[in-house]
Amino acid sequence: MASIFTKIINGEIPSYKIAENEHCFAFLDINPLQKGHTLVVPKVEVDRYYDLEPAILSELTLFSQQIAKAIKQAYPCDRVGVAVIGLEVPHAHVHLIPINRMADMDFRSPKLQLSRDEFLEVVKSIQSFL
Amino acid sequence: MASIFTKIINGEIPSYKIAENEHCFAFLDINPLQKGHTLVVPKVEVDRYYDLEPAILSELTLFSQQIAKAIKQAYPCDRVGVAVIGLEVPHAHVHLIPINRMADMDFRSPKLQLSRDEFLEVVKSIQSFL
Repeated sequence: MASIFTKIINGEIPSYKIAENEHCFAFLDINPLQKGHTLVVPKVEVDRYYDLEPAILSELTLFSQQIAKAIKQAYPCDRVGVAVIGLEVPHAHVHLIPINRMADMDFRSPKLQLSRDEFLEVVKSIQSFL
Repeated sequence: MASIFTKIINGEIPSYKIAENEHCFAFLDINPLQKGHTLVVPKVEVDRYYDLEPAILSELTLFSQQIAKAIKQAYPCDRVGVAVIGLEVPHAHVHLIPINRMADMDFRSPKLQLSRDEFLEVVKSIQSFL
Protein backbone atom coordinates (compact mmCIF):
# COMPACT_ATOMS: atom_id res chain seq x y z
CA MET A 1 0.00 0.00 0.00
CA ALA A 2 1.25 3.48 -0.79
CA SER A 3 2.64 5.42 2.16
CA ILE A 4 0.89 8.57 3.30
CA PHE A 5 3.80 10.53 1.79
CA THR A 6 3.39 8.84 -1.59
CA LYS A 7 -0.28 9.81 -1.47
CA ILE A 8 0.72 13.39 -0.69
CA ILE A 9 3.24 13.40 -3.57
CA ASN A 10 0.56 12.05 -5.91
CA GLY A 11 -1.94 14.65 -4.72
CA GLU A 12 -4.31 12.00 -3.33
CA ILE A 13 -3.95 13.59 0.11
CA PRO A 14 -3.73 17.38 0.27
CA SER A 15 -0.61 19.03 1.67
CA TYR A 16 0.96 22.42 2.04
CA LYS A 17 3.47 21.90 -0.73
CA ILE A 18 6.60 24.04 -0.81
CA ALA A 19 8.41 22.68 -3.88
CA GLU A 20 9.29 19.60 -5.87
CA ASN A 21 11.75 18.44 -8.47
CA GLU A 22 12.16 15.19 -10.38
CA HIS A 23 13.03 13.07 -7.37
CA CYS A 24 12.14 15.13 -4.28
CA PHE A 25 9.11 16.78 -2.68
CA ALA A 26 8.89 19.31 0.18
CA PHE A 27 5.80 20.17 2.21
CA LEU A 28 4.96 21.60 5.62
CA ASP A 29 4.79 19.30 8.63
CA ILE A 30 1.15 19.41 9.68
CA ASN A 31 2.26 19.16 13.34
CA PRO A 32 5.07 21.71 13.32
CA LEU A 33 7.50 22.30 16.15
CA GLN A 34 8.20 25.76 14.74
CA LYS A 35 6.77 27.94 12.01
CA GLY A 36 8.52 26.83 8.84
CA HIS A 37 8.98 23.19 9.95
CA THR A 38 9.15 21.34 6.64
CA LEU A 39 9.44 17.72 5.55
CA VAL A 40 11.53 16.78 2.54
CA VAL A 41 10.99 13.33 1.04
CA PRO A 42 12.26 11.38 -1.94
CA LYS A 43 9.54 10.48 -4.44
CA VAL A 44 10.72 6.90 -4.38
CA GLU A 45 9.14 5.06 -1.46
CA VAL A 46 12.05 3.78 0.60
CA ASP A 47 11.63 3.33 4.34
CA ARG A 48 15.13 4.03 5.66
CA TYR A 49 17.00 7.20 4.72
CA TYR A 50 20.36 5.49 4.37
CA ASP A 51 18.87 2.74 2.20
CA LEU A 52 18.30 5.34 -0.53
CA GLU A 53 20.46 5.03 -3.63
CA PRO A 54 23.45 7.36 -3.20
CA ALA A 55 22.44 9.50 -6.18
CA ILE A 56 18.96 10.07 -4.72
CA LEU A 57 20.35 10.65 -1.23
CA SER A 58 22.68 13.27 -2.61
CA GLU A 59 19.92 14.95 -4.59
CA LEU A 60 17.64 14.94 -1.54
CA THR A 61 20.39 16.61 0.49
CA LEU A 62 21.02 19.36 -2.05
CA PHE A 63 17.29 19.93 -2.53
CA SER A 64 16.94 20.16 1.27
CA GLN A 65 19.75 22.72 1.32
CA GLN A 66 17.80 24.98 -1.04
CA ILE A 67 14.64 24.62 1.01
CA ALA A 68 16.53 25.21 4.28
CA LYS A 69 18.06 28.42 2.95
CA ALA A 70 14.61 29.69 2.02
CA ILE A 71 13.22 28.70 5.44
CA LYS A 72 16.03 30.60 7.16
CA GLN A 73 15.24 33.72 5.16
CA ALA A 74 11.50 33.43 5.74
CA TYR A 75 11.88 32.67 9.46
CA PRO A 76 15.11 34.25 10.70
CA CYS A 77 16.81 31.88 13.13
CA ASP A 78 20.26 30.85 14.25
CA ARG A 79 20.15 27.92 11.81
CA VAL A 80 17.93 25.23 10.33
CA GLY A 81 18.21 21.99 12.29
CA VAL A 82 17.90 18.60 10.62
CA ALA A 83 16.41 15.40 11.98
CA VAL A 84 15.88 12.05 10.30
CA ILE A 85 14.12 9.66 12.65
CA GLY A 86 11.42 7.99 10.60
CA LEU A 87 10.00 5.43 12.98
CA GLU A 88 6.39 6.44 12.33
CA VAL A 89 6.01 6.63 8.53
CA PRO A 90 7.90 3.99 6.46
CA HIS A 91 8.99 6.52 3.84
CA ALA A 92 12.28 8.34 4.40
CA HIS A 93 11.79 11.98 5.40
CA VAL A 94 13.98 14.83 6.54
CA HIS A 95 12.70 17.32 9.12
CA LEU A 96 13.93 20.88 8.56
CA ILE A 97 13.28 23.04 11.60
CA PRO A 98 14.29 26.66 12.22
CA ILE A 99 16.01 26.75 15.61
CA ASN A 100 17.60 29.17 18.01
CA ARG A 101 18.19 26.75 20.85
CA MET A 102 18.30 23.01 21.42
CA ALA A 103 14.79 22.89 22.83
CA ASP A 104 13.37 24.24 19.55
CA MET A 105 13.75 20.82 17.98
CA ASP A 106 12.60 18.73 20.93
CA PHE A 107 10.02 16.39 19.41
CA ARG A 108 8.34 15.96 22.78
CA SER A 109 7.30 19.61 22.85
CA PRO A 110 3.68 20.51 22.15
CA LYS A 111 3.14 21.11 18.43
CA LEU A 112 1.96 24.45 17.05
CA GLN A 113 -1.68 24.69 16.15
CA LEU A 114 -1.89 26.66 12.91
CA SER A 115 -4.99 27.52 10.91
CA ARG A 116 -5.26 26.79 7.21
CA ASP A 117 -4.59 30.48 6.51
CA GLU A 118 -1.51 30.43 8.70
CA PHE A 119 -0.12 27.34 6.92
CA LEU A 120 -0.75 29.01 3.56
CA GLU A 121 1.08 32.10 4.78
CA VAL A 122 4.06 29.93 5.76
CA VAL A 123 4.08 28.32 2.30
CA LYS A 124 4.01 31.74 0.67
CA SER A 125 6.77 33.10 2.89
CA ILE A 126 9.14 30.19 2.18
CA GLN A 127 8.36 30.08 -1.53
CA SER A 128 9.13 33.79 -1.84
CA PHE A 129 12.77 32.95 -1.11
CA LEU A 130 13.08 30.01 -3.49
CA MET B 1 40.88 29.96 16.57
CA ALA B 2 40.50 26.40 15.34
CA SER B 3 37.33 24.63 16.48
CA ILE B 4 37.62 21.61 18.74
CA PHE B 5 36.69 19.47 15.73
CA THR B 6 39.47 20.95 13.62
CA LYS B 7 41.88 20.10 16.45
CA ILE B 8 40.50 16.55 16.49
CA ILE B 9 40.89 16.26 12.70
CA ASN B 10 44.47 17.53 12.97
CA GLY B 11 45.25 15.10 15.78
CA GLU B 12 45.92 17.91 18.27
CA ILE B 13 43.13 16.54 20.45
CA PRO B 14 42.76 12.76 20.68
CA SER B 15 39.54 11.11 19.44
CA TYR B 16 38.10 7.70 18.81
CA LYS B 17 38.45 7.96 15.06
CA ILE B 18 36.30 5.74 12.85
CA ALA B 19 37.34 6.83 9.35
CA GLU B 20 38.27 9.76 7.16
CA ASN B 21 38.54 10.65 3.51
CA GLU B 22 39.76 13.74 1.69
CA HIS B 23 37.01 16.05 2.96
CA CYS B 24 35.30 14.22 5.85
CA PHE B 25 36.16 12.78 9.25
CA ALA B 26 34.13 10.46 11.53
CA PHE B 27 34.73 9.82 15.21
CA LEU B 28 32.79 8.66 18.26
CA ASP B 29 30.76 11.16 20.25
CA ILE B 30 32.46 11.23 23.65
CA ASN B 31 29.04 11.68 25.30
CA PRO B 32 27.07 9.05 23.41
CA LEU B 33 23.33 8.59 23.60
CA GLN B 34 23.77 5.01 22.37
CA LYS B 35 26.69 2.70 21.71
CA GLY B 36 27.85 3.54 18.19
CA HIS B 37 26.83 7.24 18.38
CA THR B 38 29.18 8.86 15.87
CA LEU B 39 29.89 12.39 14.66
CA VAL B 40 30.69 13.05 11.03
CA VAL B 41 32.25 16.40 10.17
CA PRO B 42 33.62 18.13 7.08
CA LYS B 43 37.31 18.92 7.32
CA VAL B 44 36.58 22.47 6.24
CA GLU B 45 35.58 24.56 9.25
CA VAL B 46 32.12 25.88 8.44
CA ASP B 47 29.69 26.58 11.26
CA ARG B 48 26.34 25.86 9.65
CA TYR B 49 25.66 22.58 7.86
CA TYR B 50 23.65 24.17 5.05
CA ASP B 51 26.35 26.81 4.48
CA LEU B 52 28.65 24.05 3.22
CA GLU B 53 29.45 24.08 -0.49
CA PRO B 54 27.02 21.71 -2.23
CA ALA B 55 29.83 19.39 -3.36
CA ILE B 56 31.12 19.03 0.21
CA LEU B 57 27.61 18.65 1.61
CA SER B 58 26.95 15.86 -0.86
CA GLU B 59 30.23 14.14 -0.07
CA LEU B 60 29.56 14.43 3.66
CA THR B 61 26.15 12.81 3.15
CA LEU B 62 27.50 9.89 1.16
CA PHE B 63 30.38 9.40 3.59
CA SER B 64 27.82 9.45 6.45
CA GLN B 65 25.81 6.81 4.60
CA GLN B 66 28.79 4.45 4.56
CA ILE B 67 29.46 5.04 8.25
CA ALA B 68 25.76 4.63 9.14
CA LYS B 69 25.60 1.29 7.33
CA ALA B 70 28.60 0.06 9.31
CA ILE B 71 27.08 1.32 12.58
CA LYS B 72 23.84 -0.54 11.83
CA GLN B 73 25.75 -3.76 11.26
CA ALA B 74 27.90 -3.33 14.37
CA TYR B 75 24.95 -2.32 16.56
CA PRO B 76 21.78 -3.92 15.15
CA CYS B 77 18.92 -1.44 15.40
CA ASP B 78 15.77 -0.44 13.57
CA ARG B 79 17.71 2.32 11.78
CA VAL B 80 20.39 4.97 12.23
CA GLY B 81 18.86 8.32 13.13
CA VAL B 82 20.39 11.59 11.99
CA ALA B 83 20.50 14.92 13.78
CA VAL B 84 22.20 18.15 12.81
CA ILE B 85 21.76 20.75 15.53
CA GLY B 86 25.13 22.35 15.99
CA LEU B 87 24.44 25.11 18.46
CA GLU B 88 27.34 24.16 20.72
CA VAL B 89 30.36 23.75 18.43
CA PRO B 90 30.67 26.17 15.49
CA HIS B 91 31.77 23.44 13.07
CA ALA B 92 29.06 21.57 11.16
CA HIS B 93 28.56 18.02 12.46
CA VAL B 94 26.15 15.20 11.82
CA HIS B 95 25.08 12.92 14.67
CA LEU B 96 24.54 9.29 13.63
CA ILE B 97 22.70 7.37 16.33
CA PRO B 98 21.46 3.76 16.26
CA ILE B 99 17.80 3.86 17.31
CA ASN B 100 14.88 1.55 17.94
CA ARG B 101 12.47 4.14 19.29
CA MET B 102 12.10 7.89 19.31
CA ALA B 103 13.46 8.23 22.85
CA ASP B 104 16.77 6.71 21.75
CA MET B 105 17.78 10.01 20.18
CA ASP B 106 16.46 12.32 22.87
CA PHE B 107 19.40 14.62 23.57
CA ARG B 108 18.08 15.33 27.05
CA SER B 109 18.63 11.73 28.10
CA PRO B 110 21.60 10.89 30.33
CA LYS B 111 24.66 10.06 28.25
CA LEU B 112 26.39 6.68 28.40
CA GLN B 113 29.52 6.47 30.47
CA LEU B 114 31.99 4.30 28.56
CA SER B 115 35.53 3.41 29.53
CA ARG B 116 38.43 3.89 27.14
CA ASP B 117 38.39 0.14 26.44
CA GLU B 118 34.68 0.26 25.67
CA PHE B 119 35.13 3.17 23.24
CA LEU B 120 37.97 1.31 21.53
CA GLU B 121 35.75 -1.76 21.24
CA VAL B 122 33.04 0.39 19.57
CA VAL B 123 35.61 1.76 17.10
CA LYS B 124 36.77 -1.77 16.28
CA SER B 125 33.21 -3.04 15.85
CA ILE B 126 32.20 -0.27 13.45
CA GLN B 127 35.46 -0.39 11.50
CA SER B 128 35.04 -4.13 10.98
CA PHE B 129 32.04 -3.34 8.74
CA LEU B 130 33.68 -0.60 6.70
